[in-house]
Amino acid sequence: MQEAANNPIPNIPSSPLPKVVIIGAGFGGLKLARELNKKPFQVILLDKNNYHQFQPLFYQVATAGLEPSAISFPLRKIFHHSNNVIFRMAEVKGIDQSAKRIQTDVGYLDFDHLVLAMGADTNYFGAKNIETFASPMKTVSEALYIRNKIIHNYEKAINIAQSENRRALMNVVIVGGGPTGVELAGAMAELRNNVLPKDYPELSFKNMKVVLIEAGPSVLAAMSDVAKSSSLEYLQDLGVEVLLDTKVKDYDGKKVYLEDKEPIETETLLWAAGIKPNKIAGLQEEYYARNGRIYVDEYSEIRGAKNIYALGDISLMQDEAYPKGHPQVAQVALQQADNLAKNLIRSTKDKQKKAFHYKDLGSMATVGRKLAVVDLPFIKFQGLFAWLTWLFVHLMAILGVKNKLFIFMDWSWNYLSFDPSLRLLIKPKYVRESERHELIEEK
Amino acid sequence: MQEAANNPIPNIPSSPLPKVVIIGAGFGGLKLARELNKKPFQVILLDKNNYHQFQPLFYQVATAGLEPSAISFPLRKIFHHSNNVIFRMAEVKGIDQSAKRIQTDVGYLDFDHLVLAMGADTNYFGAKNIETFASPMKTVSEALYIRNKIIHNYEKAINIAQSENRRALMNVVIVGGGPTGVELAGAMAELRNNVLPKDYPELSFKNMKVVLIEAGPSVLAAMSDVAKSSSLEYLQDLGVEVLLDTKVKDYDGKKVYLEDKEPIETETLLWAAGIKPNKIAGLQEEYYARNGRIYVDEYSEIRGAKNIYALGDISLMQDEAYPKGHPQVAQVALQQADNLAKNLIRSTKDKQKKAFHYKDLGSMATVGRKLAVVDLPFIKFQGLFAWLTWLFVHLMAILGVKNKLFIFMDWSWNYLSFDPSLRLLIKPKYVRESERHELIEEK
Repeated sequence: MQEAANNPIPNIPSSPLPKVVIIGAGFGGLKLARELNKKPFQVILLDKNNYHQFQPLFYQVATAGLEPSAISFPLRKIFHHSNNVIFRMAEVKGIDQSAKRIQTDVGYLDFDHLVLAMGADTNYFGAKNIETFASPMKTVSEALYIRNKIIHNYEKAINIAQSENRRALMNVVIVGGGPTGVELAGAMAELRNNVLPKDYPELSFKNMKVVLIEAGPSVLAAMSDVAKSSSLEYLQDLGVEVLLDTKVKDYDGKKVYLEDKEPIETETLLWAAGIKPNKIAGLQEEYYARNGRIYVDEYSEIRGAKNIYALGDISLMQDEAYPKGHPQVAQVALQQADNLAKNLIRSTKDKQKKAFHYKDLGSMATVGRKLAVVDLPFIKFQGLFAWLTWLFVHLMAILGVKNKLFIFMDWSWNYLSFDPSLRLLIKPKYVRESERHELIEEK
Repeated sequence: MQEAANNPIPNIPSSPLPKVVIIGAGFGGLKLARELNKKPFQVILLDKNNYHQFQPLFYQVATAGLEPSAISFPLRKIFHHSNNVIFRMAEVKGIDQSAKRIQTDVGYLDFDHLVLAMGADTNYFGAKNIETFASPMKTVSEALYIRNKIIHNYEKAINIAQSENRRALMNVVIVGGGPTGVELAGAMAELRNNVLPKDYPELSFKNMKVVLIEAGPSVLAAMSDVAKSSSLEYLQDLGVEVLLDTKVKDYDGKKVYLEDKEPIETETLLWAAGIKPNKIAGLQEEYYARNGRIYVDEYSEIRGAKNIYALGDISLMQDEAYPKGHPQVAQVALQQADNLAKNLIRSTKDKQKKAFHYKDLGSMATVGRKLAVVDLPFIKFQGLFAWLTWLFVHLMAILGVKNKLFIFMDWSWNYLSFDPSLRLLIKPKYVRESERHELIEEK
């Protein structure tokens, strides 16, 4: 950026109100900023991107069902009518706790309250080759990359004469049997069953494998037994090869090596097997648990650090119901943000803070057309009605009337036509060497 | 690609039918392939991209009004139900006329008829600095790049303390007063008037310039006098500074230097001032006119080269009505393709070929909300009704029901809300060094 980072971030109006700085505009950070909108705080929301990303639908971007823009929401637009929430696109470099100051790539910022809501990134558990060659899916950019990669591989495959040399380009292997892995595997199988053979009539798709690999004994480990068995059945009906109790040993970009099983040829290894919290410089080591999450008390305040809070995936709040911490899902982040917002507002009125209690609203996953599993606290169901429930809940969770409308139309269209239409290899063009770090070179 | 280019392109079914190879799936090439669908030819359509691009709406992608996918059409999908049209994503390297063979990056291909429809690229008229620093807009990738660049510049500007240091980031200068330049300038002015001040309340937009520079004495030189004067008036009403009879001398990435006028500070110079036909190796020099277009006869066959044709922007067909050749617009390419298809089909029935006659259907340009100019052969009109005509004609020209529907909804939404919603800086993520040539690195 233009000016030295040892100046304050410019153009932030001075304000007598307590300053709440929020790092990260994911589910937790964005919810908190919205709850503090028009409340007696100056709120400064920071994110690396200028948009909020709706993670639960990344897999539909990766499989050409939705445009990135349908599930990305410009943050400035969300706060058009706010007079106390300010957004800045910035990368945070570190915290100076004693000075109550954070450093960013565009200057420093002083805070009264600091909220860490940076979420989590992909965890390769130290496997360097996998990190080098596999494709993660923790951002909408990475999801778009997967879409481009898969299409590109097919355009390559069609120019190869020997069918055995096409295998690695055509097979898709997904690692991790959580909701992301299950949803990706189901959507990939549907692409293979309904769409790709029409696009590439010269290729035979009988031999194209969609493989889902899970280290544990079942998919959707966090869900009910009936959800586990139904989703497994749905996946197998769609033709997904599900390998349970299977560990990935290594990957060289062409072949996945497994423990006790034959290797699988693939140039497309999608890694949805684990997450690790994003770190920030300047926090004491003892704040962190071994898994990288930050210990917080029942008010989401970091244990030992006054007025610094952590929300969502990066936080570790242990209570009687959740002695190992809460699950790393959107609902926890949203509810923590809501609780923190209320407590901050209470503090301005000299009212007592209230402890956080997680209310588990249930969980769900979709496998494919008319196939989903839903666990609610009071009832569990599967199949068509679960799929409709999934559609409805996700549509309601999407920000903005326009996005709801367009996604609803996209889904209706895809449902009626069996034909997601975004099979495009579009890349912003690389223009000049000096901007190479932020641009692309066309092949 | 995987296999050596001195093999034939694999997986092309052998066929006793005459083989028509079409290079380029723009307006001309795609139209020809569609007209020859289910006719007694084997048609092989080649393009660098796996989609057709609808050029007339690039400016709406650049100004955040439409998604790239809305105006890009996967070519394989268009030919799902064809049994004689084959698509390959390939880059053509050269022609061997005597062998009736073309070389591509994925192998060679023999032809009976070869159709060159590669269109045109940006012409900088030898100005190296402008080529280095300005942004062209001849592909949907380049349009997306412009969108990202403008948003990025604003995110930079807001972090600069001194307003004079923000000028170059905020000003937008467009060179070329043809339809593309006029449409870009109008849409940019509307962004400044209605959208950007809401996104960046900390910045003052009174000093943001949108400048349109044209070397000739009027904008829309090819249109009627009333279209010229109305569009100029519309632009000025929107607050576009229009500099006529003005030549750009140089550009260093920060300042545009003009002949006889003060330089203008801008980091965003959009270059819509000229085009030059794309070339291909292996054609004799005498086939080319000085402007790079290829001489063709009244059947679009290259003068001197049997069974090799050229369509659209790269071709130069001179007749009584158009002694200097036809205008380089979509209508000419479409009508030439139609004529060529009919002549190829006639040849299979031993019927006489028919010469091409261009039917000018008129031209139009939109400047902004409710503001457009339309010249039809029998009537010329401007303003709201012209704008509605422009919307209708472009909507009808868009391929596919789904795209028509989504664009119609996007336009309606933008019209009602004054708020194009795609202000997202999304880039596919750079993943590994080895793929750097085809990917992007995140900032």
